[in-house]
Amino acid sequence: MPGNKAVIYQGPGEVTVESVDYPTLELKDGPGVNPANVGRKVPHGAILKVVASNICGSDQHMVRGRTTAPAGLALGHEITGEVIETGPDVEFIKVGDLVSVPFNIACGRCRNCKEGKTGVCLNVNPDRPGSAYGYVDMGGWVGGQAEYALVPYADWNLLKFPDKDQAMAKIRDLTMLSDIFPTGYHGCVTAGVGTGSSVYIAGAGPVGLAAATSAFLLGASVVMIADLQKERLDQAKSFGCETIDVSTGDPRDQIERILGRPEVDCAVDAVGFEAHGHGGEAGTERPATVLNTVMDVTRAGGAVGIPGLYVTGDPGASDEAAKVGSLSIRLGLGWAKSLAFTTGQCPVMRYNRALMEAILHDRTQIAKNVNATVIPLDQAPQGYADFDKGAARKYVLDPHGMIK
Amino acid sequence: MPGNKAVIYQGPGEVTVESVDYPTLELKDGPGVNPANVGRKVPHGAILKVVASNICGSDQHMVRGRTTAPAGLALGHEITGEVIETGPDVEFIKVGDLVSVPFNIACGRCRNCKEGKTGVCLNVNPDRPGSAYGYVDMGGWVGGQAEYALVPYADWNLLKFPDKDQAMAKIRDLTMLSDIFPTGYHGCVTAGVGTGSSVYIAGAGPVGLAAATSAFLLGASVVMIADLQKERLDQAKSFGCETIDVSTGDPRDQIERILGRPEVDCAVDAVGFEAHGHGGEAGTERPATVLNTVMDVTRAGGAVGIPGLYVTGDPGASDEAAKVGSLSIRLGLGWAKSLAFTTGQCPVMRYNRALMEAILHDRTQIAKNVNATVIPLDQAPQGYADFDKGAARKYVLDPHGMIK
Amino acid sequence: MPGNKAVIYQGPGEVTVESVDYPTLELKDGPGVNPANVGRKVPHGAILKVVASNICGSDQHMVRGRTTAPAGLALGHEITGEVIETGPDVEFIKVGDLVSVPFNIACGRCRNCKEGKTGVCLNVNPDRPGSAYGYVDMGGWVGGQAEYALVPYADWNLLKFPDKDQAMAKIRDLTMLSDIFPTGYHGCVTAGVGTGSSVYIAGAGPVGLAAATSAFLLGASVVMIADLQKERLDQAKSFGCETIDVSTGDPRDQIERILGRPEVDCAVDAVGFEAHGHGGEAGTERPATVLNTVMDVTRAGGAVGIPGLYVTGDPGASDEAAKVGSLSIRLGLGWAKSLAFTTGQCPVMRYNRALMEAILHDRTQIAKNVNATVIPLDQAPQGYADFDKGAARKYVLDPHGMIK
Amino acid sequence: MPGNKAVIYQGPGEVTVESVDYPTLELKDGPGVNPANVGRKVPHGAILKVVASNICGSDQHMVRGRTTAPAGLALGHEITGEVIETGPDVEFIKVGDLVSVPFNIACGRCRNCKEGKTGVCLNVNPDRPGSAYGYVDMGGWVGGQAEYALVPYADWNLLKFPDKDQAMAKIRDLTMLSDIFPTGYHGCVTAGVGTGSSVYIAGAGPVGLAAATSAFLLGASVVMIADLQKERLDQAKSFGCETIDVSTGDPRDQIERILGRPEVDCAVDAVGFEAHGHGGEAGTERPATVLNTVMDVTRAGGAVGIPGLYVTGDPGASDEAAKVGSLSIRLGLGWAKSLAFTTGQCPVMRYNRALMEAILHDRTQIAKNVNATVIPLDQAPQGYADFDKGAARKYVLDPHGMIK
Repeated sequence: MPGNKAVIYQGPGEVTVESVDYPTLELKDGPGVNPANVGRKVPHGAILKVVASNICGSDQHMVRGRTTAPAGLALGHEITGEVIETGPDVEFIKVGDLVSVPFNIACGRCRNCKEGKTGVCLNVNPDRPGSAYGYVDMGGWVGGQAEYALVPYADWNLLKFPDKDQAMAKIRDLTMLSDIFPTGYHGCVTAGVGTGSSVYIAGAGPVGLAAATSAFLLGASVVMIADLQKERLDQAKSFGCETIDVSTGDPRDQIERILGRPEVDCAVDAVGFEAHGHGGEAGTERPATVLNTVMDVTRAGGAVGIPGLYVTGDPGASDEAAKVGSLSIRLGLGWAKSLAFTTGQCPVMRYNRALMEAILHDRTQIAKNVNATVIPLDQAPQGYADFDKGAARKYVLDPHGMIK
Repeated sequence: MPGNKAVIYQGPGEVTVESVDYPTLELKDGPGVNPANVGRKVPHGAILKVVASNICGSDQHMVRGRTTAPAGLALGHEITGEVIETGPDVEFIKVGDLVSVPFNIACGRCRNCKEGKTGVCLNVNPDRPGSAYGYVDMGGWVGGQAEYALVPYADWNLLKFPDKDQAMAKIRDLTMLSDIFPTGYHGCVTAGVGTGSSVYIAGAGPVGLAAATSAFLLGASVVMIADLQKERLDQAKSFGCETIDVSTGDPRDQIERILGRPEVDCAVDAVGFEAHGHGGEAGTERPATVLNTVMDVTRAGGAVGIPGLYVTGDPGASDEAAKVGSLSIRLGLGWAKSLAFTTGQCPVMRYNRALMEAILHDRTQIAKNVNATVIPLDQAPQGYADFDKGAARKYVLDPHGMIK
Repeated sequence: MPGNKAVIYQGPGEVTVESVDYPTLELKDGPGVNPANVGRKVPHGAILKVVASNICGSDQHMVRGRTTAPAGLALGHEITGEVIETGPDVEFIKVGDLVSVPFNIACGRCRNCKEGKTGVCLNVNPDRPGSAYGYVDMGGWVGGQAEYALVPYADWNLLKFPDKDQAMAKIRDLTMLSDIFPTGYHGCVTAGVGTGSSVYIAGAGPVGLAAATSAFLLGASVVMIADLQKERLDQAKSFGCETIDVSTGDPRDQIERILGRPEVDCAVDAVGFEAHGHGGEAGTERPATVLNTVMDVTRAGGAVGIPGLYVTGDPGASDEAAKVGSLSIRLGLGWAKSLAFTTGQCPVMRYNRALMEAILHDRTQIAKNVNATVIPLDQAPQGYADFDKGAARKYVLDPHGMIK
Repeated sequence: MPGNKAVIYQGPGEVTVESVDYPTLELKDGPGVNPANVGRKVPHGAILKVVASNICGSDQHMVRGRTTAPAGLALGHEITGEVIETGPDVEFIKVGDLVSVPFNIACGRCRNCKEGKTGVCLNVNPDRPGSAYGYVDMGGWVGGQAEYALVPYADWNLLKFPDKDQAMAKIRDLTMLSDIFPTGYHGCVTAGVGTGSSVYIAGAGPVGLAAATSAFLLGASVVMIADLQKERLDQAKSFGCETIDVSTGDPRDQIERILGRPEVDCAVDAVGFEAHGHGGEAGTERPATVLNTVMDVTRAGGAVGIPGLYVTGDPGASDEAAKVGSLSIRLGLGWAKSLAFTTGQCPVMRYNRALMEAILHDRTQIAKNVNATVIPLDQAPQGYADFDKGAARKYVLDPHGMIK
């Protein structure tokens, strides 16, 4: 049995790379593991040699100390890897397969999974529906920013790439299938993006850039993306987005200048609860800013996708209401326009096969658009730090040096 | 030309029945008419002898003085009538037709109408998308709690009943097609109600009762309805609803007692912005109570329909934020459950034909379920007063004594 | 290990009840078992004590000798039972659970299953997508008109009834969840049946009656059902259907008499390839009669659901083209009306939970409507014979005398 | 009043350009005008100066003498123009607007129009639902391969381009919005084409090429197009399609060579009833060939869009059954795969706005892909002749020399 190294959360602002246990087909006790999950047998699981594992903006919520994540938690929910062992219940996934792992852990056997709602699987997290690897309050499944990782319900969860060589040649793109590409795409789909749509995307981080990439793939005519940081906006501009600098104020006027009218067909909130204000309030957290803005700029009869994370409690929030997850929202504004809103984790499995085909046949350039930047596992701490400073990059960890 | 009498808003708490102008095929100046609509020609319109015109809960918002409705405004947007004159552009609707009028006024010629979004028609209200008869800030189309009423774009807007005698025999039911039956139905459809669903409906007023009726029609297995008033709950119980008395506290426990689990598949907010608190706060306005409750009681992966009215500004609100339409909403709770929300006016035309067929073939008993109570036009002031006190009745005005 | 008895196809027109092997967690060789499936391990399977197992019209195709079914084939794909053993990979289904078995066998792990298309699972039938118990060319999974039966992928396939006593009290209804109720419902859903629809159902056998029951549950205003046999039409009339006797000729005139117009909104073909002609041709097989009729009687813009079975080859057909599965269809008629057609096995899992809820909460009376008739396993041969003669009954086998 | 010239069908194989009446706001008697439509007033109509009017494959059915089209019929249903007069009922379309005309004539006031089914409008064709300009049995609305043309229900039917100069610069593309681009797109949408799909399109004529263009716009990963003619296949290859030469035999093997498996996700029949056989039968009409092929090559659980025209009667057909519109279809093959089929005219209005946005923002190159070839109105006879010989061109008539 080989050794294993993993990225570990040590406390606010600190991650390190440590030697950890090699995974087995059982969920053992450890930091963040729900007691009801300790000792859970995983004969349906597969052990992966991790080929690529990305740092995600939602990891940063934990690392910034905005959650109750315990020290010692192994991070990482964006995993791509090669199967090196399968449990006795795995029938169709084989050792040697190169696979993408949806960040949502799902059983494939509950009502929600049968309905395609794998983001709220009922059987993997004793606390509540929905789970993910390496994440606080998600059941305790071990994170995959590591050399090796365990994936339960492998036949259900894993997406096999049809050809390994072809896949390795596009691995920078395919690694985005585990989370941000489907997540951005889900934001667009639930916002009603289709042929000819005009789209406003709040946030030019990796999910926002993935949403913009998705909007183009879905046929949007104009894709506008808003952010406070110039470097991120430049990245968005590089692949055809119109950009909106909300550090200069609310976006309505800028939209009108681009589009000839101040409202779009579809809007995506790719920011979530750590939103900052616009204009003069750009330095201040204003958790409802993005929600209120997307209602303001979406046309009557339009829709809003909200893949950006909102939380049930946020002890570090700037105001008392936000600490218990209450945001001051102008719902009446949305109501007057008959808007529809879709929230929640993206059910990755609903989209990853289609997006894989689009990547493999060169219909989209997700890695280039999000500025995928491959670094060794050892450099994860630096990647976290740079990403936190707003680097317009998507960091891809390469634990075994397999990515060219 | 005959005379005309109509229900007129005189100021907070006061409505009277007055003689008014007989309608013509032009929108004349008057209280609440948008200047841009004054003098608008209506060659596509029809003049109706009003057979039935209902008092709506949303009228009460105006009558309670919670809006900027001007004194002198003719009220009423739930109109059923007989066509007695048609403009030169009306081709298919004929004099003598007995028709239902969707409360949304729509042109049938704009992008939104072509997409079936008649609740946000772009051409009838100079202020913003969407319009209605006899309503503040809706363009100034004259209300139909009157003997005679003008309906623009008659070929598009009017739903003709196939047989007049058959229709008159069911007119108490058919009059609900102009608003509350489709509105309740839309709430259910957008909440995902279908065969076997468990449903929570907040509010046992007429829209809530219509939503419950719709839920049964859509095949729901368990329909729960919550209210603060015993009389309304009794009305709901009379046709098979389970009832939840929220004056005793939050509904989660009561749902669990009924259903064996504390969450439903689908929830409908049939209350809107004048919501009161639950339990000890039942006497106090708590505008976000219902929204937060429906998120709490809906299962992960479920959906919420919000036909209850939320407004962009509410000068009479109990707190400062609510005065500008901001409500303190626990969005993170909904996000964690991947809920979807649909707001806005019901696009009546999407549903009224189907619901008419259901009524005409005895598949539903909407009049009985909402306790339709026919009164002469003269008694409208008393009807408004009784309804405001919480009478478990839906008042139907009968201006010409045509309803048996 | 107990013994086992099962209904066995012996050749055209003959079924018997025989002692057979007790099922194990392996698919053994036997009549009709695809060689590629012989010896297949089923650690994910459950063994059921069969509580109810119904005779289906599609079994009759085999028994009439219209297929290549081999002598010795154990019949039966409509299974309800109690779990008495589970394989090592079964995690959520427990011994003692009372469950419904979808007739489609599905793996829950392939692309089609993940998309909810369990009727065309890719992993259970080596011949082609899609499988069923006890059916020719479906992979060789052993039929369940027996005392005991094996169900593979138990966590995925089985629907557990929430309360055993409650379920046993409604077992005559719940046994219809394995096939005909979802199948009839799927026919209606794909035909676009909803609130207020007028519906034409071809065929008043059990699937047709289940489709009619579904149409009412979906809110249809008028449900018409056509057949050649008076007894079947009387059964349909007993629960509110309008009936059309096609032995007297094409149905268009009869529809007009009922509906006031000759076309319906939605049509369902619940007959399939063994259709007979109408009117003077009622005694003759006319395999395209129903398809051409449903196109004729459906309104422009409507849709047609085709749950009735059509086959790729039919050696016993009355004409040469039909022997290779070619039917002479007036597609231009459907094209001129912009009709949509949906064919194929019902994906039972998409509907069975919702229909279970409807049954358990008394929203539908499927057993009464299809005239469920419980008989002991021993009397299966008589049941097959009576059903073949057109008895307006749905025979439910009760192998253990558990049904009151 | 100016004069008017138009393309006139003179009999099998012959079209000429003739002087005809200038249109007025009334439908006058003439060749092919339904008596019930003679004298119909069109106050809701607009008169257009035709800027572009295309020759369509479905015109060829008439010109080849395969229909009952009368001599003297003015042809043309693909109209783009400038509004030069509006009737008194036209409120929002203005003189000077540059507009696209959907080939389906629709009233915007009937049940089907309200449901978005403008291809089967109930009020414009006395014979049956659905209508078109200049087409046999479609009510008699005068064709628009002319200098001037009448469009009824102008507010409903016309799509205004937002900026005239911008639109004239892209007029070769925008002229495809009247029919083939939406028609090809509808074929793809109803076949389920989306991100990552593999698509088989039968027929590389203009509709097939438009379907391929649409497939790319919808995000398809692989677009295969089949035809008997090399020149058409070369045109398809020019914009990234994989090509399949069915003169060499059935396409299954060729698909496997391209895709690595013999079946696609989605198939579109862009050929219709004048289909020829494959391989050795390439010289012979085989009207069911394409339908049977698309069922053969579509994967289980897939869907088929059928925008290609099938007719209710075809006196010139090669066999007796086809003369009455009956085709020998292997429906059982489709049934075994659970395929869904959508037939009929494309409801252009459902798609034309979105496709216009895609054109105006350079997301698609429809003119280039279909090889749009602009010719003067006078050269229409030559255009018809060349197109009939299989020229891989889409002929655009330019009656006023306005196209650069």
